[in-house]
Amino acid sequence: MSKRILVIGGLAAGPSAASKAVRASTDVEVVMFEQGEHISYGICEIPYYIAGEVKEEGLVVYTPAKLKETKGVDARILHKVEEIQPTRKHIIVRDLKSGKTTVEKYDRLIAATGSRPRALGIVGEDSRNVFHVKSLEQGLQIRKYIDEEKPKRAVIVGGGYVGMEMADALCSRKIEVTMLHRHALPMAGLERETREVVRAQLEKHGVTFVGMARTEGFVVDKQQRVSHVVTSEGSYEADLVILSIGVVPNSGLAKDAGIRLGTSNGILTDQRQQTNLDNVYAAGDCCEVKNLVNNKFMYIPLATIASKAGWVAGENAAGGNATFRGAIRAIGVRVFDLEVVQVGISLDEAIASGFDAVTETISAWNKVAVMPGSKRVTIKTIADKKTRRLLGANLYGEEGASLRAHALAVAIQHRITIDEMQQWDLAYTPPFAPLWDPILVAANATRKKL
Amino acid sequence: MSKRILVIGGLAAGPSAASKAVRASTDVEVVMFEQGEHISYGICEIPYYIAGEVKEEGLVVYTPAKLKETKGVDARILHKVEEIQPTRKHIIVRDLKSGKTTVEKYDRLIAATGSRPRALGIVGEDSRNVFHVKSLEQGLQIRKYIDEEKPKRAVIVGGGYVGMEMADALCSRKIEVTMLHRHALPMAGLERETREVVRAQLEKHGVTFVGMARTEGFVVDKQQRVSHVVTSEGSYEADLVILSIGVVPNSGLAKDAGIRLGTSNGILTDQRQQTNLDNVYAAGDCCEVKNLVNNKFMYIPLATIASKAGWVAGENAAGGNATFRGAIRAIGVRVFDLEVVQVGISLDEAIASGFDAVTETISAWNKVAVMPGSKRVTIKTIADKKTRRLLGANLYGEEGASLRAHALAVAIQHRITIDEMQQWDLAYTPPFAPLWDPILVAANATRKKL
Repeated sequence: MSKRILVIGGLAAGPSAASKAVRASTDVEVVMFEQGEHISYGICEIPYYIAGEVKEEGLVVYTPAKLKETKGVDARILHKVEEIQPTRKHIIVRDLKSGKTTVEKYDRLIAATGSRPRALGIVGEDSRNVFHVKSLEQGLQIRKYIDEEKPKRAVIVGGGYVGMEMADALCSRKIEVTMLHRHALPMAGLERETREVVRAQLEKHGVTFVGMARTEGFVVDKQQRVSHVVTSEGSYEADLVILSIGVVPNSGLAKDAGIRLGTSNGILTDQRQQTNLDNVYAAGDCCEVKNLVNNKFMYIPLATIASKAGWVAGENAAGGNATFRGAIRAIGVRVFDLEVVQVGISLDEAIASGFDAVTETISAWNKVAVMPGSKRVTIKTIADKKTRRLLGANLYGEEGASLRAHALAVAIQHRITIDEMQQWDLAYTPPFAPLWDPILVAANATRKKL
Repeated sequence: MSKRILVIGGLAAGPSAASKAVRASTDVEVVMFEQGEHISYGICEIPYYIAGEVKEEGLVVYTPAKLKETKGVDARILHKVEEIQPTRKHIIVRDLKSGKTTVEKYDRLIAATGSRPRALGIVGEDSRNVFHVKSLEQGLQIRKYIDEEKPKRAVIVGGGYVGMEMADALCSRKIEVTMLHRHALPMAGLERETREVVRAQLEKHGVTFVGMARTEGFVVDKQQRVSHVVTSEGSYEADLVILSIGVVPNSGLAKDAGIRLGTSNGILTDQRQQTNLDNVYAAGDCCEVKNLVNNKFMYIPLATIASKAGWVAGENAAGGNATFRGAIRAIGVRVFDLEVVQVGISLDEAIASGFDAVTETISAWNKVAVMPGSKRVTIKTIADKKTRRLLGANLYGEEGASLRAHALAVAIQHRITIDEMQQWDLAYTPPFAPLWDPILVAANATRKKL
């Protein structure tokens, strides 16, 4: 008899797990439930859609029909899973159109319930000109609102990755942007110098950055629109408000079923993506993930991790034996014309993890200096004095920073020492890379600190 | 008493070794002899100088005066070393201006005598419109010849890296280019598909590529200029001839002194860059280098290797104990608007080295497909079925190929398996890299072949 695999969640880890489960076995029936209207879309592309760089039809990767046809997955949209009953091996699913619930039996269950935007908890945050950037629906709404209502002033609450992307997008739509952030500098996980550069970059491009600002209230007009955002640092006029203060795991369903969560409330799994319950797997933004640098479980809600972990959950649910070792956290953002990337852990995290951490910062040309269009790349390394390993890095520059982070990401996950990095044999040719690549310059300089 | 270190050769490994020797010890006198007029110049930038992308003043990195001042190295140009007498620990040096020779004692000697262009051995190859691209002097002459004589047709003999760069440079100067190559396809070390793409790229940009052409003679006119290049595949008119058929190690001086050479006539050294003679080190294009993929000594005349090996030779000559483990061969070239990079060994080399080699080729987007300006990157991998290691790769594409080669180069030198690569956590952000980076796509596809 064929095995029935149910997947809860249809954005990133869900479709990845479901498709892999079908590929991994000839004898499975895979059904995926998604409470929203869309599955498998490019949530990371939403800011570029709002900016007009990406067309709407470019956002949806798979429709349910296409997923069925090409991957053999039965995707049911507008179906909300309300309960997992692990002892009975079934879930309770509500069809949001008819309002009716059904009981769906499973042999294996995969929770890919994702994350939801953190809420401010302030009256007025559900006003019609206040948006999160966490779903396709919200993305379409923001774009529509801008096209139709032509807002002049936007306030972005939150200065993280999504805040950066939205600042860039809104500026390109000729909207005046004020960014409110609870710290003095944007992008809390990065190193101080990088954060200063990002702040300067925002200001250079006309964004008013307000640091140390606690959002305390919204002034809502008669049209149910926020007209002012009131903060500890003054009040700011707004025709449009974007809330981008991070996400939290959607793990309530799992918790209620007795699935073990970590300190961030993300689901804990083993390397096979199995939870503490028999036959129940999990992957994606609803989970914590092991950080390979310090071996700690962390909440790192990124699509790259979700798709890889989803594959592993899907393969194992179908009877395989795949493993997902973990992640280092590799994340990049374009802040106007600046590439900014972080790989590995920060200096603060390194110290907190007990490493004898040192840092070094270098700036070097991305190609041979005298070649036309050469640009500076800055690399800040975080290394461990005892093991001489690279633990993390920040990279930024107008060109050639982000892809260099790939090689540093590899060094971090494979515990390569700075001494080994210094001897790396990398392709050099004047139009693409200098004789001493910025990576080698960084390794040489860092070595002197060890 | 201070130690006297002599360095023979002033281009890449020489200045690198000499400078490092000064830094590594407070008690050394370092003298570097160079037979030419210039030291420490950007030989790799010559084609871009000829094209007009780089200015003449951008070519020279260090003058003797600057090297003395900033690095403490006494560089003597127009000084040709004629003999090494290792038993007496001295060398015989001729001052090319005065014609006089002197005996120079050493405590340590570093041979960095470089390479010279392979000659055709055909009458007429010393004509005034026939050039190699192997020294600053030659580069200046080519540029001058083009500026003054305005040649309309150029013949490039040799379809390797320098041939590609010169084709690009001459086309940008509006010169009609014919490339003669002894094989059917250009760039012999690359894989067949890459070579086909390079050939198509040449032809797309107006270069006439003549494969299987053996150059048999030159027709020389009364002005001592070659007017026709006669080949096994017909005769080609030329106002300018570029010979780029490779280089050979300048190792005669070393050989005469009893220094052991390898099969390619390159000097053999240990990991400390010491030759078989006491107190005599060598580095750069005059040496063979250990290929870290198959542990064979190979002739890989590249500036990246020369500078790293030079450092090690310099440090050890000054009393240190540095090691240079070897190289993988990492080399890139811009062929018009195409980035082409090779890292590691080729399929043929892998088979000849006894690996159970498999290959896979993928093409994927360099950034999220729907982002403006996204381009395809092609990666051909060469992997070993037994150890599951990556052995080599070719990468090409209009954008984002060359820097991705950095990460693959790291995989090759650290013997990382395809399975490990498949789980690499790499930064993803729509403007710079897709969710499944081409590197991951390549790893996933290659894994299926193992």
